Amino acid sequence: MSLQLTEYADASAEVRAVYDDIMGTRQTDWINNFWKALAADPATLKRTWESIKEIMAPGALDPLTKEMIYLAVSASNQCGYCIASHTAAASKKGMTDAMFHELMAVVGMANETNRLAAGYQVEIDQQFK
Amino acid sequence: MSLQLTEYADASAEVRAVYDDIMGTRQTDWINNFWKALAADPATLKRTWESIKEIMAPGALDPLTKEMIYLAVSASNQCGYCIASHTAAASKKGMTDAMFHELMAVVGMANETNRLAAGYQVEIDQQFK
Amino acid sequence: MSLQLTEYADASAEVRAVYDDIMGTRQTDWINNFWKALAADPATLKRTWESIKEIMAPGALDPLTKEMIYLAVSASNQCGYCIASHTAAASKKGMTDAMFHELMAVVGMANETNRLAAGYQVEIDQQFK
Amino acid sequence: MSLQLTEYADASAEVRAVYDDIMGTRQTDWINNFWKALAADPATLKRTWESIKEIMAPGALDPLTKEMIYLAVSASNQCGYCIASHTAAASKKGMTDAMFHELMAVVGMANETNRLAAGYQVEIDQQFK
Amino acid sequence: MSLQLTEYADASAEVRAVYDDIMGTRQTDWINNFWKALAADPATLKRTWESIKEIMAPGALDPLTKEMIYLAVSASNQCGYCIASHTAAASKKGMTDAMFHELMAVVGMANETNRLAAGYQVEIDQQFK
Amino acid sequence: MSLQLTEYADASAEVRAVYDDIMGTRQTDWINNFWKALAADPATLKRTWESIKEIMAPGALDPLTKEMIYLAVSASNQCGYCIASHTAAASKKGMTDAMFHELMAVVGMANETNRLAAGYQVEIDQQFK
Repeated sequence: MSLQLTEYADASAEVRAVYDDIMGTRQTDWINNFWKALAADPATLKRTWESIKEIMAPGALDPLTKEMIYLAVSASNQCGYCIASHTAAASKKGMTDAMFHELMAVVGMANETNRLAAGYQVEIDQQFK
Repeated sequence: MSLQLTEYADASAEVRAVYDDIMGTRQTDWINNFWKALAADPATLKRTWESIKEIMAPGALDPLTKEMIYLAVSASNQCGYCIASHTAAASKKGMTDAMFHELMAVVGMANETNRLAAGYQVEIDQQFK
Repeated sequence: MSLQLTEYADASAEVRAVYDDIMGTRQTDWINNFWKALAADPATLKRTWESIKEIMAPGALDPLTKEMIYLAVSASNQCGYCIASHTAAASKKGMTDAMFHELMAVVGMANETNRLAAGYQVEIDQQFK
Repeated sequence: MSLQLTEYADASAEVRAVYDDIMGTRQTDWINNFWKALAADPATLKRTWESIKEIMAPGALDPLTKEMIYLAVSASNQCGYCIASHTAAASKKGMTDAMFHELMAVVGMANETNRLAAGYQVEIDQQFK
Repeated sequence: MSLQLTEYADASAEVRAVYDDIMGTRQTDWINNFWKALAADPATLKRTWESIKEIMAPGALDPLTKEMIYLAVSASNQCGYCIASHTAAASKKGMTDAMFHELMAVVGMANETNRLAAGYQVEIDQQFK
Repeated sequence: MSLQLTEYADASAEVRAVYDDIMGTRQTDWINNFWKALAADPATLKRTWESIKEIMAPGALDPLTKEMIYLAVSASNQCGYCIASHTAAASKKGMTDAMFHELMAVVGMANETNRLAAGYQVEIDQQFK
């Protein structure tokens, strides 16, 4: 088993095509480690990138809101890599310090009340069904 | 150990004050089960409500965005009660079906890539530090 | 695949021996569904029961404290069955309503600050190493 | 987005007041990184500290039991920072090595049986309702 | 916000095409609720199905092994719907009772030792890097 | 509270007996940190090792499949130590790069659809009961 990062210079044409699309879509000139690690499995690299590209595109929700939701889930899941990368991505898209602070306050409170609801065995109200 | 819901008619003055503030703040005339369950512990009822009231107030993020982040975390944590109540709350604040679909797509994808990042043991890029 | 509950009357001698030990140790005359479900796999039934019996015995921590820790983890994990059964078990061992309320408040707060620590990417203090 | 630690010397009067209360309440002369990180958002710093102060005060459960429950949840959630800080806090309040070992054994077993209960789709016994 | 199940008879051509592919690929004549719920968002329905179809196809791992891994993760995450549907799917692909029992024993043990490793703050051995 | 690794040379006869059994069973000449950390609590060391030895032995599932399920759960739980050690163990038992890639794709997808099922509040089909 080898876990290694595939640099652009060493990548196959198939992987380079994904790297090019990532850099073009994100208007950046480098590839972060997540994609370099997935490149060991070109099928997963391609499928994951295409899914993210489709999901994160502007729609009923704007890209910044989507990025903050991504960050909120990553913080809730305590994924170190994902928190670092999506905090950077959200900042690039316009998340201010104040927005980050409020986002984290909501994430913390949701994690608290999720457990209170479970521990107190609260049944779903008829009105919510 | 008794787990029971405290109705307004049976509540102490301390609990009623919180119930009144919840209904006034949310402009509604009923109290959902989560609060009725917490009322068994008035200190936790009061502290939890006051924290949520402060956190969910308009700020750098608007109330709908906060509610959607709350829902995203609850869906990620698979908390049945919380998903039902915050889906209803977000809808009341303006979340459309299209917004809900995009929110869920982001939640799903974040949960997927969080595990890929962990499983591939991806190290944080220097640029994200 | 069949998921079924094995009643005492239908159990093999091997399973009955575990059931007898559970009822004797817990000084009760019935077996709850968790064990009846595990009985489909006698090896897991026996190993799980013997591990729990050893772990939950009085030691440096008293049985009630251990039961409350079990409940705290189950509430944090939002396991419906486990919350119900360990709330009952802790009550039987002496957990009062006030103790349950304080336990849940700690569980909720720990879940909140765990995510704040992760989201703010807090590094471990030298003093804690 | 800047993630930085606010030292006492650089803190506003509002933040210093919280730092002073933390040190006074805990009878210590230093502030750990968690609070220095939250200080970037004084409202969250204050609310979180006041909630923890209220929750962790002696009550129906003694402070050591509460701290061990906090540690149990943090270990279950695999929050590195929280495990380190609450292991230290529990030790300071009297947790011995033997108590820590028993606590971790319960946390491990609870995480195991939580999944067995889910995987075997065990229904809640009538007696637990 | 409406959460509803889209039946084949009421589905658009786009949704029917996915339903047909699901039934053809799985050699079955009905669609389970998961897909009927996702049908409210045809883009997510199509992307999710195509990803699963690609991932679950025979490869270096056989379909039964993949299905058991899917079930193991779902049991670990305590997702009721997913446990029920993937237990059924794995059984259809050949999982016996004995295989299910061993699978669940591994899932339980992994969840236990994951927390022991975290709680004891175990550092990664040089040999594993 | 001391968290330390117990080396073979410093171990009691009780701990050495477990270390010897681990090395003999695994046909290796070293002990990884997980066991050295648990050795601080000989009862937990012995119980955990004996449970794992029993669970991971060949049965209805072969040892490689069991090891991959262990790795899948560890990746899903994002346990850094466990991912590193079980990736190494699975490789030693024959997991190829291609098998690892497919395993991770399943883990990622399961984590995604687990949340979609929860967020869309999907009810269990009658056929799965």
